Amino acid sequence: MNSRGDGPDGASLVAGLGERALIERIRLRLPQPPPSLVVGVGDDAAVAAGDRGALQVLTTDALVEGVHFDRRIASPADVGYRALAVNVSDVAAMGGTSRFALLSLMLPDGTSVAEVDGLLDGLLELADALRVTLAGGNITRSPGPLVVDVTVLGSVKPRKILARSGGHAGDSLYVTGAVGAAAAGLGWLRQHGGGRAPEDPALAECVARYRRPEPRARIGAMLGRTKAAQACMDTSDGLADAIRQICEASGTGATIDASALPVHPGARRWFEGQGQDPIAEGIGASDDYELLFSVSRRSRGRLRGIMRESRGIRITRIGELTSDRTVRQTAAGRAETLPAGFAHF
Amino acid sequence: MNSRGDGPDGASLVAGLGERALIERIRLRLPQPPPSLVVGVGDDAAVAAGDRGALQVLTTDALVEGVHFDRRIASPADVGYRALAVNVSDVAAMGGTSRFALLSLMLPDGTSVAEVDGLLDGLLELADALRVTLAGGNITRSPGPLVVDVTVLGSVKPRKILARSGGHAGDSLYVTGAVGAAAAGLGWLRQHGGGRAPEDPALAECVARYRRPEPRARIGAMLGRTKAAQACMDTSDGLADAIRQICEASGTGATIDASALPVHPGARRWFEGQGQDPIAEGIGASDDYELLFSVSRRSRGRLRGIMRESRGIRITRIGELTSDRTVRQTAAGRAETLPAGFAHF
Repeated sequence: MNSRGDGPDGASLVAGLGERALIERIRLRLPQPPPSLVVGVGDDAAVAAGDRGALQVLTTDALVEGVHFDRRIASPADVGYRALAVNVSDVAAMGGTSRFALLSLMLPDGTSVAEVDGLLDGLLELADALRVTLAGGNITRSPGPLVVDVTVLGSVKPRKILARSGGHAGDSLYVTGAVGAAAAGLGWLRQHGGGRAPEDPALAECVARYRRPEPRARIGAMLGRTKAAQACMDTSDGLADAIRQICEASGTGATIDASALPVHPGARRWFEGQGQDPIAEGIGASDDYELLFSVSRRSRGRLRGIMRESRGIRITRIGELTSDRTVRQTAAGRAETLPAGFAHF
Repeated sequence: MNSRGDGPDGASLVAGLGERALIERIRLRLPQPPPSLVVGVGDDAAVAAGDRGALQVLTTDALVEGVHFDRRIASPADVGYRALAVNVSDVAAMGGTSRFALLSLMLPDGTSVAEVDGLLDGLLELADALRVTLAGGNITRSPGPLVVDVTVLGSVKPRKILARSGGHAGDSLYVTGAVGAAAAGLGWLRQHGGGRAPEDPALAECVARYRRPEPRARIGAMLGRTKAAQACMDTSDGLADAIRQICEASGTGATIDASALPVHPGARRWFEGQGQDPIAEGIGASDDYELLFSVSRRSRGRLRGIMRESRGIRITRIGELTSDRTVRQTAAGRAETLPAGFAHF
């Protein structure tokens, strides 16, 4: 540890600042908290008021350097943004609304104060946009990678919860936005580095989607509140994986119309340029943070209402749940089994 | 990664089991959840009912291998127990009751299934004793140390919150249990390794207190509910640090009677044997997870009620808050400034 607090290049290091000063630095830059945050950063724990009559939605997801991000192609602000986004996506997939976040940081010895500031910049940018309050957290040393572990506490009304198990044979399957964008963006970054952006605007959008996934917070909450959807899950581990998880939890199979899959146009060009099949890559690709959800016949009217309110986010019917428990995709009249999803180990 | 799932010594490795199977393995060993857990492990997020009319208490604390524990002297079960204990202690220090926990695990590639089982053994043992429900979490690879990051969600009634800032000049300062035990236990383990226990029963108790800190969950909740205490904090970073934090937040100083400090008898012998001053070491020592709290003159009757209900846990008056904002300890008629607390960086 560097007790002077300066790195070899003169950068101010967290190790020299000390934990208390670092927490104070973070506290001072937090926006005015809402009245619902009764005790915020700086005590043993945070205390917050829940939404009246609501249940608590709880989720935690860690980003580990070398596993989930690479500092050569993602800025500290990208990592901070993403760390909150992936948790908000989980709350949205339950039909809930994210309210409070806790940030647990594990910082390697060489971490600079500017890097921590950057992490906070990204996290607070998304928190502000979604009205999520950073309520507290924890900072410690890491003898290994940088770890950004975020917990989000949200709320959902009873009987408005979107579990994975709510699907029934005959329900239609829908997905928000487009698939494959994040994987294509990551592929491009790995080949070209993080220094510049692709010239193709659609591919540039893919890079942006990888760096700053846009959790479907508003649509998830609407799907729950209106009960337009019955089962829901995010596509963080890929669309194919999400389809399988909903089928397994709901006791159904599914038939997916490969020609209907909303593969992102930039991703389609990227995969084709790599000699890959855009459909197979798009359905297997992880990190998109779209929502996959099932809609019963009698909920379709409610879904049309949500489509009108979706603010330009496409919602695409990609198939349906079946009583036969196999999962198939049909393409040009042929039925095939789905490619495997992302495995964490 | 080892796709066969076997280590060189034939131990079953997490890397071969896969994330899904590991989560399923954990899910199957969880006790029957209470009705308040509406959605548990296995969906995008957990959903839980809060206590009626209560506020939410939120805290997160990570244990990082090589920073907070050493696998040569702490078993996986010790680490799992401790990871929950430190968070429960934070909730207790707010006057709250811990209800739900989330477990975020970062596992190095060589982690065995038995190690994960051990972590869960320890965590669930304490969870069962305190009726805390493991509601969900996250598992990922770590290219570095083992990290066990726990978030606890508790509840506290409005106006029963014990903030650090609630103290006033003239309030008495009390501490639960004994100080210095964990530091003495750790000192002994560092010299002798984790293979055997000290012969001195009091020192053996210190080792046990280091390995399995006993958060003052019940006393913290009682101090909040009855409003016997006004300010409260746990002594995780040492008693001296806690005194300073309460003084700073409350705008007071303090005078501590060094002769009244409840230094653990085993710790006293250990420090003396090392040629150290037991008072100075005891007041500076971290990892005890006792509660330090302030009690106003008119709350003393309520505190006596709690002392009668404390089930053998000593509660000791160690000094008082002062309007003069310096923090002093008096020993044999001399006033001295307090030694510094534990610094995380």
